[in-house]
Amino acid sequence: MLTRFEWLKGHGTENDFVLLPDPAGDVHGDLSPRLVRALCHRRRGIGADGVLRVIRSAAYAGQEPLAAQVADETEWFMDYRNSDGSVGEMCGNGVRVFARHLVEEGLADPAEPLPIGTRGGVKVVHFDHDGLVVVDMGRGELQGDVEVAVGERSWKASRISMGNPHAVVMVDDLADAGPLLESPGYDPGDFPDGVNVEFVREVGARHVAMRVFERGSGETRSCGTGACAAALAAAVVEGGSRPQLWRVDVPGGTLYVHWLENDHVELGGPAVLGVRGHAEPRWLGL
Amino acid sequence: MLTRFEWLKGHGTENDFVLLPDPAGDVHGDLSPRLVRALCHRRRGIGADGVLRVIRSAAYAGQEPLAAQVADETEWFMDYRNSDGSVGEMCGNGVRVFARHLVEEGLADPAEPLPIGTRGGVKVVHFDHDGLVVVDMGRGELQGDVEVAVGERSWKASRISMGNPHAVVMVDDLADAGPLLESPGYDPGDFPDGVNVEFVREVGARHVAMRVFERGSGETRSCGTGACAAALAAAVVEGGSRPQLWRVDVPGGTLYVHWLENDHVELGGPAVLGVRGHAEPRWLGL
Repeated sequence: MLTRFEWLKGHGTENDFVLLPDPAGDVHGDLSPRLVRALCHRRRGIGADGVLRVIRSAAYAGQEPLAAQVADETEWFMDYRNSDGSVGEMCGNGVRVFARHLVEEGLADPAEPLPIGTRGGVKVVHFDHDGLVVVDMGRGELQGDVEVAVGERSWKASRISMGNPHAVVMVDDLADAGPLLESPGYDPGDFPDGVNVEFVREVGARHVAMRVFERGSGETRSCGTGACAAALAAAVVEGGSRPQLWRVDVPGGTLYVHWLENDHVELGGPAVLGVRGHAEPRWLGL
Repeated sequence: MLTRFEWLKGHGTENDFVLLPDPAGDVHGDLSPRLVRALCHRRRGIGADGVLRVIRSAAYAGQEPLAAQVADETEWFMDYRNSDGSVGEMCGNGVRVFARHLVEEGLADPAEPLPIGTRGGVKVVHFDHDGLVVVDMGRGELQGDVEVAVGERSWKASRISMGNPHAVVMVDDLADAGPLLESPGYDPGDFPDGVNVEFVREVGARHVAMRVFERGSGETRSCGTGACAAALAAAVVEGGSRPQLWRVDVPGGTLYVHWLENDHVELGGPAVLGVRGHAEPRWLGL
């Protein structure tokens, strides 16, 4: 029976998370979707885009079967939940905040690459000299062109998979898409599970700015995979050989995307821990 | 020098607040606008519509001259700040949450009327049998008709002062006003300092539902003075003698407005304390 528990709040470019320290898995047991929704409620709860339970991989293995690589290669598992309570696979900004927390608590060494277990596999994080937290997001896949529309306007978009689907539109002005109150239109044949849409403007040499509409969340302050997709789309327009380092301004701050020779994409940026406290389920109306 | 400090979060119909316990006024000194903005930031801070510093009136008198009635009649002062860091006079949902906090901490007796000092004078709160927190908001003033507009549509509105200015529009459907992305239009001669606009639909006998656009904040989940203004406008349409008790559904919950024989307006509703914790300025980027 869950009574009082500890939490922290953190964010990466204003993509924000409630962290629940639960190393042995004995605080939250099966973390309930109801508790996740209550924690993420911005007025009744703490408020966040998602919850990151911080649990040892060995403890989490008792709750859900883990991929062999995750079980063998990671000490810590990021049990990520979306704000609607559903189970999430991976989150680029989330895993960076998760890694920062482990280092601040003395649970990981910032001088070494840090493998973190996720439902999307092992993600390796490192800490660069500027204090940014960088995660290898795996391979990006360019999948040709599609079309997206907002109201009367439509654009050609680059279809890119970063594990999840993206459509990237290059625009002259980020205001072109207007207020993004609902998902841009697309052919459901192209994206049967929905799509994240990025509107991207070139700012300068290897420097873009973007807005993002995330499926299920609406327009957000930042999206890690979206920033990667935006940089890849812009890199293809520009041409040139890899590696290429891009700066991507999102509404919530600045991210850096490194497209490596092996086609892996690294996402770097600030990851910040903020206020912390405790809670009881009844304080959340549970 | 402010180092670590305690805070709580509370809300009334999802109008939410960070409470800063500071009985002797020695924790926060001059509460800085910068700290207020950082606390209220929904992604980098705690997130709230405003800050309620909980300070004894005698201690606050050393920081700012108090009205004689506040100094004489209140033990506690609600030092209210808007989320932009500016000083606020009064907040109907805020003072209800403030009172709930005093009672939960054993600092006030819920069986007695509780006078609370604010920059808008003394506000008397009581606790009703259903656990609702009720505050006397003072006199409402009916000031005739004005006109407001959203896009191509315009409506006749009741101009009502609850200390602050309101324009109340009766509509058949709350969706009539569309997405309220910017302030409804009005004649600046009518409202030189701006206006809060309520769109109100009759639901049943002495029961309305409303949406509200608050000057400076945009569309919000709840507005205490707005609920009072909405009930008064509907009461005038309906006629009948006072006292009258109205139910007002706002997006964040349900409020009750009691229009008394002496023209005072009481605002009642839930007031809930949620999570709590501590913070250090550096965690907020300060």
